[in-house]
Amino acid sequence: MIKVKRYKKNPIITPDDIVPVNKGYQVVGAFNAAATKYKNETILILRIAERPISDDSNIVLAPYFDLVSSKTKTIKLKKNDQNFNFDDSRVISSVVKDNEFEYLTSISYLRIARSKDGVHFEVEDKPFIYPHNEYETFGIEDARCTKINDRYYINFSAVSDHGVCVELISTDDFKTYKHESRIFNPDNKDVTLFPEKINGKYYALNRPTVKSTGHNDVWISSSPDMHSFGQHTWLFSGSSDGWDSGRVGAGIPPIKTKDGWLEIYHAADKQSRYCLGAMLLDKDNPTKILKRLADPILKPETNYEKNGFFGEVVFSCGCTLDKDQLTIYYGVADTSMAVCEISLNDILEELKK
Amino acid sequence: MIKVKRYKKNPIITPDDIVPVNKGYQVVGAFNAAATKYKNETILILRIAERPISDDSNIVLAPYFDLVSSKTKTIKLKKNDQNFNFDDSRVISSVVKDNEFEYLTSISYLRIARSKDGVHFEVEDKPFIYPHNEYETFGIEDARCTKINDRYYINFSAVSDHGVCVELISTDDFKTYKHESRIFNPDNKDVTLFPEKINGKYYALNRPTVKSTGHNDVWISSSPDMHSFGQHTWLFSGSSDGWDSGRVGAGIPPIKTKDGWLEIYHAADKQSRYCLGAMLLDKDNPTKILKRLADPILKPETNYEKNGFFGEVVFSCGCTLDKDQLTIYYGVADTSMAVCEISLNDILEELKK
Repeated sequence: MIKVKRYKKNPIITPDDIVPVNKGYQVVGAFNAAATKYKNETILILRIAERPISDDSNIVLAPYFDLVSSKTKTIKLKKNDQNFNFDDSRVISSVVKDNEFEYLTSISYLRIARSKDGVHFEVEDKPFIYPHNEYETFGIEDARCTKINDRYYINFSAVSDHGVCVELISTDDFKTYKHESRIFNPDNKDVTLFPEKINGKYYALNRPTVKSTGHNDVWISSSPDMHSFGQHTWLFSGSSDGWDSGRVGAGIPPIKTKDGWLEIYHAADKQSRYCLGAMLLDKDNPTKILKRLADPILKPETNYEKNGFFGEVVFSCGCTLDKDQLTIYYGVADTSMAVCEISLNDILEELKK
Repeated sequence: MIKVKRYKKNPIITPDDIVPVNKGYQVVGAFNAAATKYKNETILILRIAERPISDDSNIVLAPYFDLVSSKTKTIKLKKNDQNFNFDDSRVISSVVKDNEFEYLTSISYLRIARSKDGVHFEVEDKPFIYPHNEYETFGIEDARCTKINDRYYINFSAVSDHGVCVELISTDDFKTYKHESRIFNPDNKDVTLFPEKINGKYYALNRPTVKSTGHNDVWISSSPDMHSFGQHTWLFSGSSDGWDSGRVGAGIPPIKTKDGWLEIYHAADKQSRYCLGAMLLDKDNPTKILKRLADPILKPETNYEKNGFFGEVVFSCGCTLDKDQLTIYYGVADTSMAVCEISLNDILEELKK
């Protein structure tokens, strides 16, 4: 039995705690943060989503980073424009094209929050990384942080009119960073790096989005240098019905345990309700799944998980581990950050059943 | 002025020349071949498409390679089944899903043809590579062959219900081969490898298919070892109107010239009419396009290019070069193989204008 101990004062970070960096914008999301321990602090790398405020209720503003002026600008769209669909709070889609979106309703970037106790966080005033290249003009989203050889590697989704691809940077001080590589070309997201080489190779879980045929499934790829990935191998799919029937994606960077690599991932059903699941990968061959729990370990139940910018979502990009205690940081309703504690041993025992 | 000298006896290989390897199937395509010189022969690595013959005009048979029995089998679909769309001769799509296809109407594999004079070919009886793993259950398509360090590297699209990904094998005798890597995960196709390292790295052009947003554009990626690719960089898009407005894709493996890397690629307009175009990439930095011709160098004009399994298509995966003469092998109408000669210097002169 897996007991989930939600922090009583959840959510721990909300949009109201954040001052927007763009004038005339409101913060609509502070969520889906990477998590790690650095020195004596817990660090979250938050996804901050800022939405331009429209003075005219008939006009929707779509934000983007303009490469020529190096400024965040907006495109004005009329709400009654028959060419667009405004039903999804997150995206604006074209009614004639078969793409998922034409514009986003907010622009996301990464901002660091620090805590001594793991629940009270101070959010930095300035972005850690703001969109600045042609792959990021619609924003950067959902970071994961993995400590490898005493350096912290941070990957995130870069969104632009080139599609959604994955970039990798590294840091050793969480102030400056080095761009490492664009590690997956579009469409791909939900990438988690393994924290060490396995049989001489680095590995990453990743989630290509397919247009041709099939589903949005998780793959595993290997790399000699963390700049280039190959030997792409299909890993798993959601079920045809139930909590994981809509899509699956890697969540928290894999955790090394005595029984194998623990991966806590997310899955959505066909109504886009997001839960967290758990699986165990073989210690020496992570392309092999040893066990996957049939039921989610965390699902939207509380008010802050069920209601928000996009409700019915729990979505984790990171945790910290202290002895047996997993402290899981997770985005709720595409709006805020929450935290819960789960015993690592509880999960492993369940996976052994 | 670029003069195209089509071979008078085109097409040089047609489906009628090929005996199917599957009983109860007909060969509907012998096309889109990789081309190279090996010893004193020209070698084509043909894509052979075989379609199951349905005895019942109300039944459409969809072929696939069954992994359990290691046999090619068929799924029976009723032509009046409202769940499917049978309008496209190449694919069967679901009316409820937003994927491009659910099944293919034929199964493709690779077969070798050999010639002493470059126009009269003898096609081998047996496949060089037939689908045999979970990434290839719907077939393998559109090979490219690149000689690197005295070994021949052959990449092709692998199609299955995991989507369309790209595999790389190598050979030094065109009889046996070694599987190298799955170099791009889905959806990606139209990959061409550069024949040598540039500033210490291998490079590949590739064409991700995006579902999120944007177009089907050509990217360029680098690799330390040809097994893993990264530093993915957007290279070019088709125009919004005209002959290249539908999609673009790399075609012939880049050719080293005194002026830079010559890439002969394909593009389709919005009506899926495929032409060949030419561009020049910087010799030392192939992520930089020096020049791209505004007009196609080859377009469907003859009867065999305009009519067939899928008409209005010229599509090249390979050529041979003898002094100034490019002998371009190209698939026509997704049916047969044709050949034409173009002066390399003519193309380079046009690119310098």
